Amino acid sequence: MPKYHDELDAVLRALADPTRRAVVERLAKSPAVVSELAAPFAMALPSLMQHLRVLEEAGLVTSSKQGRVRTVSLRPGALDVLHLWLDEQRTPAERQADRLGIHLTRTSAKET
Amino acid sequence: MPKYHDELDAVLRALADPTRRAVVERLAKSPAVVSELAAPFAMALPSLMQHLRVLEEAGLVTSSKQGRVRTVSLRPGALDVLHLWLDEQRTPAERQADRLGIHLTRTSAKET
Repeated sequence: MPKYHDELDAVLRALADPTRRAVVERLAKSPAVVSELAAPFAMALPSLMQHLRVLEEAGLVTSSKQGRVRTVSLRPGALDVLHLWLDEQRTPAERQADRLGIHLTRTSAKET
Repeated sequence: MPKYHDELDAVLRALADPTRRAVVERLAKSPAVVSELAAPFAMALPSLMQHLRVLEEAGLVTSSKQGRVRTVSLRPGALDVLHLWLDEQRTPAERQADRLGIHLTRTSAKET
């Protein structure tokens, strides 16, 4: 699955930078205009725009412009590829623990 | 939380390389000796050892030597930091969907 792996490469590389991760953390709460995103970082606007470009190329964010205001949003399902990969890496012991957890949730639901 | 973020940086950077990710995928199944890990890659052993060093420094793998044989294992909980970060990024809509999913699991368990 080359496409899946290319997407993973891009997402992981984009998220390996703390500033870009902070932008994703902020956008997970709600969309934001660029000036809002820039505010918490001691960073020139062109540097922030460069980070946003990396996030956009990795498929993590989308942006739209209305008049002079650009609004940036986390792309729905942006992190799915990473969730999927992590799920695949669960060890046999972790899978067993998950099954036990589901069993206990069901058992306790039945008892209540 | 600077330590948490440093750990995340290291883990994400380590996983952004497809060879290192393939090594983690292999080790999620079971520990392996270095020659076994090298086999699927058209790669000189020193290059693989360099990748293993990056994974070890990121806290993702551990290794031990018995005689001349080095066995590499995925560190238990190696990917926890990434699971944790991803959980924190769930959007309000995703959190609501999770709660609904738990509710439905419980309801269907009660009905059976």
